[in-house]
Amino acid sequence: MSLLEEKTLSTEKIFSGKVIHLQVDEVKLPNGKTAKRELIKHPGAVAIIAITTENRIVMVEQFRKALEKTIIEIPAGKLEKEEEPADCAKRELEEETGYECESMELLNSFYTSPGFADEIVHVYLAKGLSKKENAAGLDEDEFVNLMEMTLDEAQQAIKENRICDAKTVFAVQYLQLQEVLGK
Amino acid sequence: MSLLEEKTLSTEKIFSGKVIHLQVDEVKLPNGKTAKRELIKHPGAVAIIAITTENRIVMVEQFRKALEKTIIEIPAGKLEKEEEPADCAKRELEEETGYECESMELLNSFYTSPGFADEIVHVYLAKGLSKKENAAGLDEDEFVNLMEMTLDEAQQAIKENRICDAKTVFAVQYLQLQEVLGK
Repeated sequence: MSLLEEKTLSTEKIFSGKVIHLQVDEVKLPNGKTAKRELIKHPGAVAIIAITTENRIVMVEQFRKALEKTIIEIPAGKLEKEEEPADCAKRELEEETGYECESMELLNSFYTSPGFADEIVHVYLAKGLSKKENAAGLDEDEFVNLMEMTLDEAQQAIKENRICDAKTVFAVQYLQLQEVLGK
Repeated sequence: MSLLEEKTLSTEKIFSGKVIHLQVDEVKLPNGKTAKRELIKHPGAVAIIAITTENRIVMVEQFRKALEKTIIEIPAGKLEKEEEPADCAKRELEEETGYECESMELLNSFYTSPGFADEIVHVYLAKGLSKKENAAGLDEDEFVNLMEMTLDEAQQAIKENRICDAKTVFAVQYLQLQEVLGK
């Protein structure tokens, strides 16, 4: 394996927001030349594949300002400071859907945009769902519609571009694979 | 379906870089209150699932400054201005791997981080690979190691976290599903 690493020569902090931070690093390339890297720092997130006792996938419909459209996603949310991902997954499931679960199993963690951001999404499988009384509500700037879909409906929603984000496409493909494998 | 839309009240442009642009929008929420949205604009990207005649997946190993580590990904790259995604996929495949292909089929397009970025990745399946003579090379600030892996090796690399980004996890899952379905 050759050395591909880029060494940081300097860091310019550009923006520090509520959710993301932006910096531009000057790096030394493997050939000794220099280049600039525009980098977003993000706290990381969780997403939850939650299946009801009627074998439906719990989804939330949400307006995404970055896309200027409303899309259907699995429940998800950002990690709070020093929060464990599994705790965050339970919290977000409750806040966004009103469900609690018996078990929360980590399926996969992936970086969403390694070219410019360090955001990682931890995808969990929630089992044993039940509606929680007096469930915690959404953040004050969050508005979602709760939906429950069969796997067929979710696959159709991908074809129709109503499901169109990486974590939810991953989730639907994961469930399809489990079904085909008879799990 | 209730109205979830957020209306833009003002836009503050914070940063305009080579790859990404950052702005903060003030929005009017469905309940009439206001909130800030930190938004990254990105030109969009393509990624290519390319299978050799020996039934191996073409991968590139690359240092990702945002993650401060070297990871294994399917070939990918950003759209140039007004470039068609299919043309970009052919160009990136050639530049990063030296392969050309007989057909380039769009499998799926998904947003990587809808919470803060408009980046979309168009994932293509390249068929009929052959090495191109005098293939175009990499960008001057790009350094990658070419690799070819079996599906088993790729699944193992996911377990070992050497494959850990959304588009490549999607690709491996897609190929696994095709194999199980006998396609």
